[in-house]
Amino acid sequence: MINKPLAPGSTIGIFGGGQLGRMLAMAAARLGLHAHIYSPQHNAPAFEVSKKQTVAPYTDLNAVKEFASQVDVATVEFENIPLDTYEHAAKYTTIAPGQTALAISQDRLAEKKFLSSHGIPVAPYFEINRETDIVSAIYKLGQDGILKTRRMGYDGKGQIRLGANIDPDVAIKAYNGEPAVFEQLVNFNLEISCLVARDFKGEIVFYDCPRNVHRNQILAESHVPANIPDDLEKLARAFAAKIAEKLNYVGVLAVEFFAIGGVTDTPLIVNEIAPRVHNSGHWTMDACVCDQFENHIRAVAGWQLGTTRRHSNTMMVNMVGSDMDRWDEVASSEGAILHVYGKDETRDGRKMGHINYLYDID
Amino acid sequence: MINKPLAPGSTIGIFGGGQLGRMLAMAAARLGLHAHIYSPQHNAPAFEVSKKQTVAPYTDLNAVKEFASQVDVATVEFENIPLDTYEHAAKYTTIAPGQTALAISQDRLAEKKFLSSHGIPVAPYFEINRETDIVSAIYKLGQDGILKTRRMGYDGKGQIRLGANIDPDVAIKAYNGEPAVFEQLVNFNLEISCLVARDFKGEIVFYDCPRNVHRNQILAESHVPANIPDDLEKLARAFAAKIAEKLNYVGVLAVEFFAIGGVTDTPLIVNEIAPRVHNSGHWTMDACVCDQFENHIRAVAGWQLGTTRRHSNTMMVNMVGSDMDRWDEVASSEGAILHVYGKDETRDGRKMGHINYLYDID
Repeated sequence: MINKPLAPGSTIGIFGGGQLGRMLAMAAARLGLHAHIYSPQHNAPAFEVSKKQTVAPYTDLNAVKEFASQVDVATVEFENIPLDTYEHAAKYTTIAPGQTALAISQDRLAEKKFLSSHGIPVAPYFEINRETDIVSAIYKLGQDGILKTRRMGYDGKGQIRLGANIDPDVAIKAYNGEPAVFEQLVNFNLEISCLVARDFKGEIVFYDCPRNVHRNQILAESHVPANIPDDLEKLARAFAAKIAEKLNYVGVLAVEFFAIGGVTDTPLIVNEIAPRVHNSGHWTMDACVCDQFENHIRAVAGWQLGTTRRHSNTMMVNMVGSDMDRWDEVASSEGAILHVYGKDETRDGRKMGHINYLYDID
Repeated sequence: MINKPLAPGSTIGIFGGGQLGRMLAMAAARLGLHAHIYSPQHNAPAFEVSKKQTVAPYTDLNAVKEFASQVDVATVEFENIPLDTYEHAAKYTTIAPGQTALAISQDRLAEKKFLSSHGIPVAPYFEINRETDIVSAIYKLGQDGILKTRRMGYDGKGQIRLGANIDPDVAIKAYNGEPAVFEQLVNFNLEISCLVARDFKGEIVFYDCPRNVHRNQILAESHVPANIPDDLEKLARAFAAKIAEKLNYVGVLAVEFFAIGGVTDTPLIVNEIAPRVHNSGHWTMDACVCDQFENHIRAVAGWQLGTTRRHSNTMMVNMVGSDMDRWDEVASSEGAILHVYGKDETRDGRKMGHINYLYDID
């Protein structure tokens, strides 16, 4: 716990050196706070905009100790940092968010149980530990579902989509024996997310909920305003706030929702939570007084949270893989704000950058 | 001259590692361009957000050569880089802006002659090369004036204010024999500046003119909109565009104006020009689609210039010297966007950061 705000000149340690770490590091620099990035990857995108870098595997606990001893607070850019690493760091510095948030979001089953236990609706699910569980799951929830590994899944990785016309044997054959969850397919009308920032004192601020569009299971676009009914926005905020509170969360937390029609008695179910800044909040960089990256830094550094007021309507478009070949065209379009992540290699499905378009509020 | 835009992954060399270099480096990073900072100063504020750093005196022409050979284009964060250094760099890389802009703005007399020769009004002035010139200047222009050294003056440095009640002997005694200019004191109603960006093809974009307030000869505040008559804004833009064109300028150029009442036949005179991003353009970081730093990088990298559209009204307040002690109070005020420059030592009169306040456009 940080009781008084870390003064400019203090150091924020960040586990992970991808684009999220990079944008966090720049937000820290704007506040006069130094970023120290820990990444196993040489040439991590965050390195060039940070004061200090540690290149070491997450499992190198000596390196973790040295890193943690040098920073005033440590945080994460993504939830799949090994828990041992994060807990080891906690011996030498303050960590924010706490390890519980990571533990829960690292395991789909734990996450669903946590949410359900607090009355927050999720898609009907069935725990899978062996092949026969798949048959039981289909018997109970129907064939229309998605088999998801419990760990290390993001951007659609580790997921097998079943469906009315697909033989359950396909899933059984593809199933590799790892602990998994069978999730009933939910017919949703739209996807939204809610980004909240919470500080050490328990203060919470909300960003307007974006409406998100996925393509190939990767976020493609966020639209703000989402043009959803006020009730839905309020409900999303209430759920997100409850999650943050129950986790005693510090930092920015993203909650992805499906807005459904009639399947359950609530119009919203949680798809997943991300205990970190989130792709569906990238529009805040250019449309809000204080963006998600700065608010995450403010929260973990013990600062008062910044104003989330949105001054413009906006659409965020991800640049995935070869989309980045169009950088020149994008950079030349009127009103497009281009963000390039500085990755040295373009790969299919890899997030290379994003574009924020700004429009006047009607 | 850069004929096609430098692709992400290219390197922008920047002479100077202060706050302007720092904000330029972050703008470059956002576009996927690497910044290589050249500064004689260890721990220059720009270092922590740049890919590469050269620490060497500007007079070390070997270091300059090595630096220039490694970058795709070189630019400056301030105009007082020695001309030899910049010209030497030009042998090994493209430089933008060109050396003429630097040469002229390094010498108050050359600047005034350049402006006058293109019909752009300046305060009446008199060239001072020896003590007796001061007497002649006072005889010709009156006692109410300012004696300014021709070189290395900024933020009021190298200036002696005369006045109706001050003995000319004071100026003569203070005069150190350096080439100087005696400038007639102009009664101005307000100060504005005009920031333009110009690319290699000669395209020009304008930012809205801010109205500026100085305290102790250091910029204290910029207000946008300036609430000046349209004619005045148009005239400022026309003068700024003419200066940029006559210099065949590439990058962001700032022109400071006094709006006067009746002294000459034009309501605007140029106070000075700055061939670089400028403190009176810091509000663009948070109030415009594309800010002055990104547009400077875009211009020198051969990219199409970005949209200068302003989405919010704004006020920029500089944090000078011990103002920075108030960082916590500022960071906690609703809607204040704090920018801290990461300087390791607070000194009187030193620019430590700035605050942008955003307001809805009426």
